[in-house]
Amino acid sequence: MEANSDVGVTAEILATGEEIRTGALVDSNSGTIAEQLELVGVKVVRLNGVGDELNRLTAILKEIGSRANVCVVTGGLGPTVDDLSARAAADAAGVGLHPDPAALASIEDFFRRRNRPMNPSIHKQALLPIGAEVLFNPVGTAPGFQLRIGRCGFFFLPGVPFEMKRMLADHVLPRIERMLGGFREVRRIKTLSCFGLTESLTGERLDGLGEQFPGVQLGLRARFPEIQVKLYASGADEARVAEALDQAAGWVRGRLGDLVFSDSGEPMEAVVGRLMRERNASLAVAESCTGGLVSHWLTEVAGSSDYFRLAAVTYANDVKTSVLGVSEETLARCGAVHADIARDMAEGVRRLAGATYGIATSGIAGPAGGSAEKPVGTVCIGLAAPGQALGYRFQFNYGRRSMNKQMFAMKALDVLRRELLGLAHTS
Amino acid sequence: MEANSDVGVTAEILATGEEIRTGALVDSNSGTIAEQLELVGVKVVRLNGVGDELNRLTAILKEIGSRANVCVVTGGLGPTVDDLSARAAADAAGVGLHPDPAALASIEDFFRRRNRPMNPSIHKQALLPIGAEVLFNPVGTAPGFQLRIGRCGFFFLPGVPFEMKRMLADHVLPRIERMLGGFREVRRIKTLSCFGLTESLTGERLDGLGEQFPGVQLGLRARFPEIQVKLYASGADEARVAEALDQAAGWVRGRLGDLVFSDSGEPMEAVVGRLMRERNASLAVAESCTGGLVSHWLTEVAGSSDYFRLAAVTYANDVKTSVLGVSEETLARCGAVHADIARDMAEGVRRLAGATYGIATSGIAGPAGGSAEKPVGTVCIGLAAPGQALGYRFQFNYGRRSMNKQMFAMKALDVLRRELLGLAHTS
Repeated sequence: MEANSDVGVTAEILATGEEIRTGALVDSNSGTIAEQLELVGVKVVRLNGVGDELNRLTAILKEIGSRANVCVVTGGLGPTVDDLSARAAADAAGVGLHPDPAALASIEDFFRRRNRPMNPSIHKQALLPIGAEVLFNPVGTAPGFQLRIGRCGFFFLPGVPFEMKRMLADHVLPRIERMLGGFREVRRIKTLSCFGLTESLTGERLDGLGEQFPGVQLGLRARFPEIQVKLYASGADEARVAEALDQAAGWVRGRLGDLVFSDSGEPMEAVVGRLMRERNASLAVAESCTGGLVSHWLTEVAGSSDYFRLAAVTYANDVKTSVLGVSEETLARCGAVHADIARDMAEGVRRLAGATYGIATSGIAGPAGGSAEKPVGTVCIGLAAPGQALGYRFQFNYGRRSMNKQMFAMKALDVLRRELLGLAHTS
Repeated sequence: MEANSDVGVTAEILATGEEIRTGALVDSNSGTIAEQLELVGVKVVRLNGVGDELNRLTAILKEIGSRANVCVVTGGLGPTVDDLSARAAADAAGVGLHPDPAALASIEDFFRRRNRPMNPSIHKQALLPIGAEVLFNPVGTAPGFQLRIGRCGFFFLPGVPFEMKRMLADHVLPRIERMLGGFREVRRIKTLSCFGLTESLTGERLDGLGEQFPGVQLGLRARFPEIQVKLYASGADEARVAEALDQAAGWVRGRLGDLVFSDSGEPMEAVVGRLMRERNASLAVAESCTGGLVSHWLTEVAGSSDYFRLAAVTYANDVKTSVLGVSEETLARCGAVHADIARDMAEGVRRLAGATYGIATSGIAGPAGGSAEKPVGTVCIGLAAPGQALGYRFQFNYGRRSMNKQMFAMKALDVLRRELLGLAHTS
């Protein structure tokens, strides 16, 4: 290992199983574990995955045992012949296997409480490496265990996500926090959510952050069409870490201005929802090209029924007229993808719903339907507010229908956010 | 490495990025790559993940270079300072970086075709290790590259899943197949998409598949709320592999019946769309608790404007009346979450849109709004067809608003699918 600049405890994670190795199953466990370990101040430096092969499994356990302080292993604790974790752990630690009385009691207890018969293969699960400490599984049959291999404390957990999560919380995190004792480092992350620039343009605007704030690390995470600017800092003193992050966040805001729509990780629809609630206002949406996505996002927010009244996804032109009252004559003259149509849709749905605000989308998500004058990626957005209605036209194209829909929907919400905050509109 | 029983080509996969290391993002790329490599007959023996730290990244590239024949790396190709893959690859291979003319041309072409201005940081993406072969990226700005490090051929791809998938198919798999030459085994996967059982119940129904079809491996993949049954087979003879899979798929269909909605990997909304198209029928949707998700899914299908006319997301009760014509008296008597209301919403939106079919949802997605009689997870689904309108009530609860919305929306589409195919409805 060349990199050895880490102070404190470093951890690795190992996912095992043929379904992981072959990609039949996406390993979500490792991400869950990494997030939880980072939160208690343990730096996860490496993720690993191998199949159910005894030699490989034993070898990688030894390898990690020579490198890390802590390792959480998932999978391979079940009753079948390809469940090899206990065997491999014993081999790697150079000890034998024995039937663990506490593990056996835990398994018998599980079956007794559920009134289920126990078949003999279940007893295999009580065979643990000598010297291992059993970790009870309150929600499944396979107990886990803790064992030192080399310089590293290993925690072996089941691969079933909800069993793993429960045992991580009940057994692993408390033991790790005890291990850390006074030795803990504070780690904090601050997330600024932005919309309106690509990842690379966002990165360019933030050039120089590293020199200004040497203790703060920058990460950009594209959650299309949103860009998250993540600021990471760590240290012994909580107040100083928080102060460093606050100062860096202020600097980022200075560079990105009102492209930042949240500094608490809220998605755009929650920001808009909060603004509606603060103003005691209500909202109606008319969608064409976004096909219901604006409405779907808005209603992901719990409590959105307090301000969200209606969305009309008027995909066919004649329902734009019959439901929203858009004029047939304007439709014939301008076509459906036009700023005036978007404006009239927004006004129409606002009136229909009796809402304070109306927003509307009409555009061409593709792959078909574009023309020279209105290519795929054209979107018109309408905004109706008390006393005024406006239409805008924008052009994006990400080459995929679903990405275009997301971009269009986000832009519509951003137009509304800017209106509610009295900000200038961006192109 | 103790295990060295593998013949043929062995591969590893490396996912990079702080969001992978810290668990902020679940790495789905590695599973996708593993599956595709296994399909062309390359055995994936190990998965790896590290963050954006130059030393660690360089070290792990050297390590894999001493172990594997093939490695696919994802992430770290972007324009920002924390995109380190090219630098680390050059260091690991002991070569320098240079601006690659082919890479630069590819990036410029991308921007030209989209009429977007190029900012200077973009040029960083054309800095490749000397001796690397550029891999064009037709759907994004960051080109990939191929480079030998140690005994291993590395393929560096972007971390954005759809860019990665496209480049894997276009560049990596053909090159690997050429490498393998005549050495190949045929591997095939068959996917049956199911809805209506949990993963574990689906697995129980398929108990015995292994004994019946010893050459076929079973994998279950939960893509909530859909379960994919994956059948894997391999062998020297293509026709025999295909036959084994077909027979196993027939057996699975026998066990799961009409819970299987696709045997070609189509999502539910595409299946429903195909059925609408075949019948020359049109569709309108009224949504309450699903908040636009049914409509959003339906319009993810390109060409859906041929049959999809209107969705009315009537979140407020009074717009159920004013827009859909649901009787105020019925609403007052039954409450909004009732099979009769769902039925009347479906009929109302069908009439409003002049569509052949109408479907509707009304329920309680949570977290608030439940009662003893109608707990969170209650959903009523309405179906209006020529000559009849019906309402159903179901109960699910997954403890999360967004999961409940997905389950409700899928159930509504499945009710329509069953109607269109003349199948019995399930509870």
